[in-house]
Parts: sequence; structure tokens; C-alpha cells
Amino acid sequence: MDDGKPLKLRPDFEKAGGLIPAIAQDHGTGEVLMLAYMNPESYQRTLDTGEAHYWSRSRKELWHKGATSGNIQKIKGIYLDCDLDAILLKVEQVGGVACHTGRRSCFHHRWEGGSLYAVV
Amino acid sequence: MDDGKPLKLRPDFEKAGGLIPAIAQDHGTGEVLMLAYMNPESYQRTLDTGEAHYWSRSRKELWHKGATSGNIQKIKGIYLDCDLDAILLKVEQVGGVACHTGRRSCFHHRWEGGSLYAVV
Repeated sequence: MDDGKPLKLRPDFEKAGGLIPAIAQDHGTGEVLMLAYMNPESYQRTLDTGEAHYWSRSRKELWHKGATSGNIQKIKGIYLDCDLDAILLKVEQVGGVACHTGRRSCFHHRWEGGSLYAVV
Repeated sequence: MDDGKPLKLRPDFEKAGGLIPAIAQDHGTGEVLMLAYMNPESYQRTLDTGEAHYWSRSRKELWHKGATSGNIQKIKGIYLDCDLDAILLKVEQVGGVACHTGRRSCFHHRWEGGSLYAVV
């Protein structure tokens, strides 16, 4: 065990094929807001700026979350999992809205009784 | 808006290339425990049994979480995101340990001051 000692570790982008899933969680409430992907550049930008940057798979470009909407995510903590192939961001969600639908969280389809329901 | 009406939706495995990331979150504390992947079979098994099933990318096989360790995850809620390509499971983590390292959560590498630290 090396708890408390610094490790020269970074996300293992190579193993994951270049992109790693990143979970954004509200640092205060614990609500899971969204899941997006990071490549090395977006991870480094996130570290350097203290604001969440992702890689947009649909637009194939660096994505500074909130750059147009104003709903940026201020980084409060960054965690990597045991295999170094998943990222957890604790964020302050400026504007209170993470989803492009205007909802706080992107996870607004709830499975219940055999169907999925859209919930606020 | 169709809030409250059932939607005949399911995860869009096809768009995602067959595997979709699934976040397991403690339903009581909100702690993010792990991220793993689901294919259609593991998703269906999860719905049918009420216990988390994933697809092991390393072993290339259906993975009933906790089948050997006893640390199964009882499903308390299932959410899909706006794009239907990410899954959020609210779970009761039996045994209190999600990670194969014996820790509660797999996210035990914390980035701080330019380095990653191993934390409990």
C-alpha cells in the first residue's frame, strides 16, 4: 500500500483506445450530472484551467463545457479509478444545468416497471 | 415534453458500438463506486434479476458483479442519459466494497497539486 504517497500516474488513454469516460458529479449534492469523454488534450486542459473540457465524439473537437451556454463546470476534485481508465470529476455546475435539454442532470430517463420514463 | 409518460426506449447499444458505460452509484450516500460496461445481454440480465451484470472487457464474458466475492449490487434505480448511451445504476453495494482492491469505491486515485495520490 502506498496511500498518501504521490504516484506518477495518469489516465491510461492508450489502453482505452484514446478516449476515457469522465463522470461529472455535483460536488455538493453528489448528483451525477453527465458522462462524456476525454482525450489527453482535454484532460490536460481540464488540469490547467480548472474547468471541465471534454472531447466531443459527435463534433470531433475539443469541447469546453459551457463555453457557449455559460454553464461551465468548475473542478473541485479529480479522481481516477483502479484501472486508470475512468475519470470522476467533482464539479461546481455553474448555472445549475448540465444537460443540453435544460435539466440539471443528463440522466433523466428512469426505468420503472418495464418502461423508461422521462423525469425532470 | 413527455414527462411522466412511458417511453419505449432502451440504451442505444448500436450507436455506441455494442458497449455502453454504466456508472454504479451508492443509492444511499451518492458515492460513485465504479464504472463498467454493459452489452445488451448484461443490461437485460440486470433488469431481469435486479442485480448488476456487466460485460467484462478483459475476460470478454458476462460478469455478474459479486458472484464470486459476494459483493453483489442490488439495483435500486436505473437511469439513462439524454443520448441513451450512458447508464446510471443506483445500487445497494452488498458488503460495502465495490473495488477488487478491497476499497469501497474504485475511484481512489486523487489528483492534487500536480500528482495523483492513492487515497482510501
